[in-house]
Amino acid sequence: MSTLVVKFGGTSVATTERIQHVAQRIQKEYKKGHSIVAVVSAMGKTTDQLVAMANEIATTPSKREMDVLLTTGEQVTISLLSMALQSLGIEAQSFTGWQAGIVTEQVPSNARIENIQAKTIQQALNEHKIAVVAGFQGIDAQGNITTLGRGGSDTTAVALAAALGAERCDIYTDVDGVYTSDPRYIKGARKLQEMSYDEMLELAHLGAGVLHPRSVEVAKNHRMPMTVRSSYEEVEGTILKEEVIVEKNLVVRGVAFEEQIVRMTVYYNESYTGSLANIFTTLAKNHINVDIIVQALVAQGSPTVSFSVKESQLQETLAVLAAHKSTLGYDHIEHESQLAKVSIVGSGMASNPGVAAAMFDRLYREGIGVKMVSTSEIKVSVVVAHEDMLKAANALHEEFELSKVSVEV
Amino acid sequence: MSTLVVKFGGTSVATTERIQHVAQRIQKEYKKGHSIVAVVSAMGKTTDQLVAMANEIATTPSKREMDVLLTTGEQVTISLLSMALQSLGIEAQSFTGWQAGIVTEQVPSNARIENIQAKTIQQALNEHKIAVVAGFQGIDAQGNITTLGRGGSDTTAVALAAALGAERCDIYTDVDGVYTSDPRYIKGARKLQEMSYDEMLELAHLGAGVLHPRSVEVAKNHRMPMTVRSSYEEVEGTILKEEVIVEKNLVVRGVAFEEQIVRMTVYYNESYTGSLANIFTTLAKNHINVDIIVQALVAQGSPTVSFSVKESQLQETLAVLAAHKSTLGYDHIEHESQLAKVSIVGSGMASNPGVAAAMFDRLYREGIGVKMVSTSEIKVSVVVAHEDMLKAANALHEEFELSKVSVEV
Repeated sequence: MSTLVVKFGGTSVATTERIQHVAQRIQKEYKKGHSIVAVVSAMGKTTDQLVAMANEIATTPSKREMDVLLTTGEQVTISLLSMALQSLGIEAQSFTGWQAGIVTEQVPSNARIENIQAKTIQQALNEHKIAVVAGFQGIDAQGNITTLGRGGSDTTAVALAAALGAERCDIYTDVDGVYTSDPRYIKGARKLQEMSYDEMLELAHLGAGVLHPRSVEVAKNHRMPMTVRSSYEEVEGTILKEEVIVEKNLVVRGVAFEEQIVRMTVYYNESYTGSLANIFTTLAKNHINVDIIVQALVAQGSPTVSFSVKESQLQETLAVLAAHKSTLGYDHIEHESQLAKVSIVGSGMASNPGVAAAMFDRLYREGIGVKMVSTSEIKVSVVVAHEDMLKAANALHEEFELSKVSVEV
Repeated sequence: MSTLVVKFGGTSVATTERIQHVAQRIQKEYKKGHSIVAVVSAMGKTTDQLVAMANEIATTPSKREMDVLLTTGEQVTISLLSMALQSLGIEAQSFTGWQAGIVTEQVPSNARIENIQAKTIQQALNEHKIAVVAGFQGIDAQGNITTLGRGGSDTTAVALAAALGAERCDIYTDVDGVYTSDPRYIKGARKLQEMSYDEMLELAHLGAGVLHPRSVEVAKNHRMPMTVRSSYEEVEGTILKEEVIVEKNLVVRGVAFEEQIVRMTVYYNESYTGSLANIFTTLAKNHINVDIIVQALVAQGSPTVSFSVKESQLQETLAVLAAHKSTLGYDHIEHESQLAKVSIVGSGMASNPGVAAAMFDRLYREGIGVKMVSTSEIKVSVVVAHEDMLKAANALHEEFELSKVSVEV
């Protein structure tokens, strides 16, 4: 009997009524003859409420205790969903992170799964029970409760699917699949039937928030087929797998965009001879996420280095740079806010050198200035003015004919 | 360094503000140089809210999953109290039931503690940390989460105190000690400085709800000194221990009372020759708690047996008896509602045969009819009409001079 891991996020289990709906949804898959493991998140706004209580008590609550607090959220959901399944006449058993054998690093609030001792879950499946597992949580080697950080429940689901040799991991969410771009803003944005792990990884990193990058990484490493589908409607979702058949007109598979970007530029004195890399070591140590980096090593004049950060980290970035001015040895810093990033993604781009050129050409024709560029094997990102973001995204979506339905197998 | 186990109930930790107050209270004891283990319940009405959610989903939720659900309540409190202690600059570490090594029977919703593997807690204490432990919960040998039933957090505290060889177990609650009777209704009811385990056990069983009987049993078995004291006021509470010095006028130590009692009377035919005991086996199997039993074996006429149950179990009792009429072989049943039980308790009663007589005499003089009587070594209970309950209790409190302050130690 094939095993299916299904995952339902916080919105899908926000009320007892929705939990009952999820139980019915699971029942359908169960009746098809699958062994089922259901991974769930905390109900709706539970996590926010717990965080609020912690903040009433301490300004910087200990991460260990925060994990103890937050993991109660999923524990509530697993018990209620198990009861709901039992009410439908299906045997079900709940598993907290430690009961499920999910062993993580000893890193409170952002641990990675080290291994899964899935014996107890496998036993429940052998007894034809549905195993209902708390997402987002685990236990470290010292017996401390840990959490996996943002998007952790998706990672729990994929890692369990890999550990159990499941046929597939289905992520049920409030959208019905992965789109070529955000349909709320981009004309003709269209759901994709298939997508490669790498494409999804790029999209996930580029602000298309359907899945957390770590869960896609785990799926890729284990070549675990993974779908993104709707909790509410019974329609086909998008399947992620290693190889997808890509037609010529599908070199670009998606357009992503993200606002609230700031470009920082650090100016050195002409006489500066040190390593410009020090600055990124310092920023990383202070947990500042730098995205695009453009290093301008000039033959004459002041050397500069530019990089982008999120608007939310601007003040922190300025403070860190100011605090390390003497060791970093720069002269002064400038920054430009109100920027956005627009990216095109597609596995076929590596073998199509003209794609980036076509992108720049179209942006030029639209009169959109490009402030920074970053490329990888399968994506090109540009930083533009915030006011140009949607114009650029729509133009690129059209340029690469993403709205055209094509045979995708 | 001596170890102290302190326990705070749901009312004492009902809000984040009260949790901070509890942390300050603990800090005082900690500064006196004790090693401290703090056992806590779920915040205020949390348990009721969780039960309500379960009832929205299932009419008879599985007991295993109910335990998974309810234990999140204490898990929230331990994390918040640990954060509150840390905010005061004290090292603290939270422990769920399974992290504290509290191993129970495999009986969901009403498990007894089998043993406590207190090594991890002891290690935290050795590192001068305050160990904050979730009351009411444990883990069975199969790794299931279990709960200890009503009053379970008191039991957790006393059992931990015994396992750690603590000096004392302090139960902080919303009353400031054990009283000779309920001060809300009984004139002159007075706080006792000391009380024996046996006296407290009788009081606990007789509806004086300060402590759960099981916790007192555990304290008695380990001769663990236990106090009941106020979470809010800094006053001496009542200490429970093996031997208390009892003066002559303190033969009776407390008056307890309980309403909503029903007397059932079962009538047999004159020809009946079977065992009247069958009826109690049948009731026990159906989870009906029978309290006082009066068996009237008559030489002539119909034999009868009378017993008391709580009003809340009346319908169930009638249904069980009706369903087993043929095997039990009785003729008919009568019952009388609107009754109450009034009891006097005192360790010295066993050696004072006049006590019961003095009780009956006083009730006779008050014009109060006694409908049933039950006695043990250290208590006498009578069933009276509900309207006579407080009159009887006040009269007995006065009769045995319980309001007189006497030298007790």
